[in-house]
Amino acid sequence: MKRTELSEIGEFGLIDRIKSQTALQNGSSHLGIGDDAALIDAGDHYQVVSTDMLMEGIHFDLSYCPLKHLGYKAVAVNVSDIAAMNAIPEQIVVSLALSNRFSLEAIEELYAGIQLACEKYKVDLVGGDTTASRSGLGISVTAIGRVEKGKESLRSGAQNGDILVMTGAGGSAYLGLQVLEREKQVYLENPNMKPQLEKYEYEVGRQLKPEARLDIIHELKELGIKPTSMIDISDGLASEVLHISKNSGLSAVIFQKELPIEKSTWELALEFNLDPYTCLLNGGEDYELLFTISQSDHDKIKNMADISLIGYMSATEERSVMRTRSETVVELKAQGWTHFNKS
Amino acid sequence: MKRTELSEIGEFGLIDRIKSQTALQNGSSHLGIGDDAALIDAGDHYQVVSTDMLMEGIHFDLSYCPLKHLGYKAVAVNVSDIAAMNAIPEQIVVSLALSNRFSLEAIEELYAGIQLACEKYKVDLVGGDTTASRSGLGISVTAIGRVEKGKESLRSGAQNGDILVMTGAGGSAYLGLQVLEREKQVYLENPNMKPQLEKYEYEVGRQLKPEARLDIIHELKELGIKPTSMIDISDGLASEVLHISKNSGLSAVIFQKELPIEKSTWELALEFNLDPYTCLLNGGEDYELLFTISQSDHDKIKNMADISLIGYMSATEERSVMRTRSETVVELKAQGWTHFNKS
Repeated sequence: MKRTELSEIGEFGLIDRIKSQTALQNGSSHLGIGDDAALIDAGDHYQVVSTDMLMEGIHFDLSYCPLKHLGYKAVAVNVSDIAAMNAIPEQIVVSLALSNRFSLEAIEELYAGIQLACEKYKVDLVGGDTTASRSGLGISVTAIGRVEKGKESLRSGAQNGDILVMTGAGGSAYLGLQVLEREKQVYLENPNMKPQLEKYEYEVGRQLKPEARLDIIHELKELGIKPTSMIDISDGLASEVLHISKNSGLSAVIFQKELPIEKSTWELALEFNLDPYTCLLNGGEDYELLFTISQSDHDKIKNMADISLIGYMSATEERSVMRTRSETVVELKAQGWTHFNKS
Repeated sequence: MKRTELSEIGEFGLIDRIKSQTALQNGSSHLGIGDDAALIDAGDHYQVVSTDMLMEGIHFDLSYCPLKHLGYKAVAVNVSDIAAMNAIPEQIVVSLALSNRFSLEAIEELYAGIQLACEKYKVDLVGGDTTASRSGLGISVTAIGRVEKGKESLRSGAQNGDILVMTGAGGSAYLGLQVLEREKQVYLENPNMKPQLEKYEYEVGRQLKPEARLDIIHELKELGIKPTSMIDISDGLASEVLHISKNSGLSAVIFQKELPIEKSTWELALEFNLDPYTCLLNGGEDYELLFTISQSDHDKIKNMADISLIGYMSATEERSVMRTRSETVVELKAQGWTHFNKS
């Protein structure tokens, strides 16, 4: 029998394949596989459903990731997916698989982080499952939110000429991970060395305890702006720009000089001999939002804090590109995630 | 720092602990942790949400569990939880954690089983997550269903004098597992031996490819019966009877002679020197339904096929008990699951 490695088709290839073999038979299934979350018809609103699984040794390393932070992050990344539909999260269910190296006290630390995130994002933990695992820790969270019909923002809704907007700044979480990995190696080589993390507090915090930009969803609502499309930035900006482009049947043009990178992140990238823009474009785990708005909404958004207008959608460009500071044009490439290659 | 093993407090102790530390803050969170599923207020109906995680080496052994059956089972056990709320499932999301020993073809086998169950139970696969795992396979399914307000059956609704009803028969899945484990040992000792499974086809099938009793939910609706309480039988009948008793503030009396056990299951138990009733009471994984109905519904249910009236709820008995064939009275004990002890 033929054996095809998952690394040959990649994450997005696998999702496309599953989606192509899946038919929706219930009228209440409004939107299925392929966006940040599914939409279920519930009368005057949609229930918005998203799920994410975090596995020890793949998504986190407990030698430097405190369990409380991990619990917080597991909730935040799901809240981020709900937010990316222009929806408000209301409930989560959490399943844990635990090897017997975890004590009750450890699990309570994890739940303390989950509960902290529940308070922060005003979501309720309404159920879950706890089970044993042969090795390591696995956390699966499903978040459920709500959006009034017509207010949902899909990946597919961008229009020609729409403005591309990114919240916050990027590349930081990826660099935070590089710092944690470096300090772990130092510690392994010499356990008397104290990890040097203070200087990189911002980037390390972005990696260990990211925040979902639910604040932006509330603010957009107050400003009377409905993004024509939206996605959260989990796999790096390039990948997300391409998702919106592909799903909307358009190309995107982004301007390198408009890409938001914090000064400390910039310096840290150089310390690692990395290009700060590459960290932003392909690094992942920033959990910022990327969305498009109609040009007619420009006046409404122009005074909004903590956003950058990074480009526009085009029906005439053949490919999605970045215009660099030196006025060259570079095609955007998706790196996706490559867990299968690493493992 | 104090270290308490999870095996000291057990699954139900852990759930109680998490529940006691969890407050619901959203008005839409109608029912949280502690039943077969959560209930979310969606206007004229509740969205019903349940989640289950299956881990390789704990819940299944791929040396005898075909991936297609596993996919089917992962959906069926979640459908069973939705059914146990007297609700109809409509959507699922599925997360997979996969080590690189799994090929694309293997994953497609798993999804073929998921899709078969989706067709059987008329649910739609609307999303999920696929990720790498350091070792083994993990499957997390969240099912979402719908029940008209007022039609939901909770564990807490049983009334004094209500009749306890069990669907189908029990103990079979547990004995199917014993057969599979035995044949695996035979095979490991002598790889030329062909596994003897045909004779035990029914029990092995109940273990590998259980069915959710959604048919019963449709039938109860047609008969105009709303169970006053309901639960699915995943951990063994004794445990489930005690859940209904505890949550309803009553005791249960069940009659040994009314407990449904298939003839082949009975014979198989004896072959293993096991008490067939113990297999039913503590074996688990039967995924039948246990529910209570008002005595006034007795006439409506008396001609229903594939059910057994196994006892009644009592406000006067001090403890939940089984009256044996020899007219002795035995207190019911919950075994719960003991994965943490085994691992």
